[in-house]
Amino acid sequence: MSQVIAEISISLDGFAAGPNQGEKAPLGEGGERLHQWIVPTDSWRSLHGMDGGEKGPDNDVAAEFGRGVGAYIMGRNMFSPGRGEWDESWRGWWGEDPPYHVPVFVLTHHARESVPMEGGTTFHFVTDGIESALEQARAAAGDQDVQILGGASAMQQYLAAGLTDELRLHIAPVILGAGERLLENVGDLKLEPIDVVASPAATHVKYRVG
Amino acid sequence: MSQVIAEISISLDGFAAGPNQGEKAPLGEGGERLHQWIVPTDSWRSLHGMDGGEKGPDNDVAAEFGRGVGAYIMGRNMFSPGRGEWDESWRGWWGEDPPYHVPVFVLTHHARESVPMEGGTTFHFVTDGIESALEQARAAAGDQDVQILGGASAMQQYLAAGLTDELRLHIAPVILGAGERLLENVGDLKLEPIDVVASPAATHVKYRVG
Repeated sequence: MSQVIAEISISLDGFAAGPNQGEKAPLGEGGERLHQWIVPTDSWRSLHGMDGGEKGPDNDVAAEFGRGVGAYIMGRNMFSPGRGEWDESWRGWWGEDPPYHVPVFVLTHHARESVPMEGGTTFHFVTDGIESALEQARAAAGDQDVQILGGASAMQQYLAAGLTDELRLHIAPVILGAGERLLENVGDLKLEPIDVVASPAATHVKYRVG
Repeated sequence: MSQVIAEISISLDGFAAGPNQGEKAPLGEGGERLHQWIVPTDSWRSLHGMDGGEKGPDNDVAAEFGRGVGAYIMGRNMFSPGRGEWDESWRGWWGEDPPYHVPVFVLTHHARESVPMEGGTTFHFVTDGIESALEQARAAAGDQDVQILGGASAMQQYLAAGLTDELRLHIAPVILGAGERLLENVGDLKLEPIDVVASPAATHVKYRVG
């Protein structure tokens, strides 16, 4: 059955991004350290047209990205450094062929026409709330999964609303000290660890939610 | 070589205790949920004079408690619900035979005579700071390890001062939402996961520090 999966990298002190996010620091100050586990992997490099990456447990985890996923959801702040009305020249951080290859629903307060990209990714902009975005993502995904990509605020809303079946955390051995916390304003989630993969670069834990 | 090991259970949102700690709630509201992984284990039950506990990965982790440890350090607030001057009738939470069986150094601002208990535990009260307490604990431990037990504030001080060789976290699949955060005011620790044990009740991660 189709699942709703929230997946994100966090620091050991619980931040999904560092402070002062902006165009020059999409993940905030130090936020790129959250993804040090994935950048050297073979899967990640392949996805970005490079070879010669590392194998091993982090690569196995990275290789799962996108598998069985029929649609993604992300917050406005993950899609764009801008706030308020759209600068329509902005087409995401990921170039003309983003690594999604299926519809991506972007939560926003500002309407915008859908943006088709190369490789199967289309960005759709949803202004009527998280439940509507999930409904549209489910319809697009069919019997495949819907994955919530972040950022912290979007994920919190889905967790707090009880709309998430699984939470996948990549816990980086990093202390950011400040930034966007992931697990606040989520209520008292019922969580059960169902799978853990360990490496020196991160601890990857899948939790069943609810 | 003798190591300094900080070991504690935390919630997935990073709290080492819930809010409103006091005599009736030593770990704060909901704080007992942090230890649900250990309470049913055979090792824990044996330590408290009961049999019939559970085996498995959590029990393996619980069985390590105290192994190779020659002295412990804890904060005043872990030893006692009282603050300020000592109520000398208070001899800890653990009855007449505490589960330590070696010297325990308690950080405090208020001097007190050492309190010998049954079974080898003696509580010593250290008023001249964390470095002095560590020096005394090292001397007592000889070539065995020194373990820092908590609470959050004591552990933060040792981590921030670069005096910890290993951090052992038992990450409970629980959201407390409020309480005493462990990993704040610790600076930018250099951490490497060196061992992970997974169970449905907790994710046990050992980090090398520094």
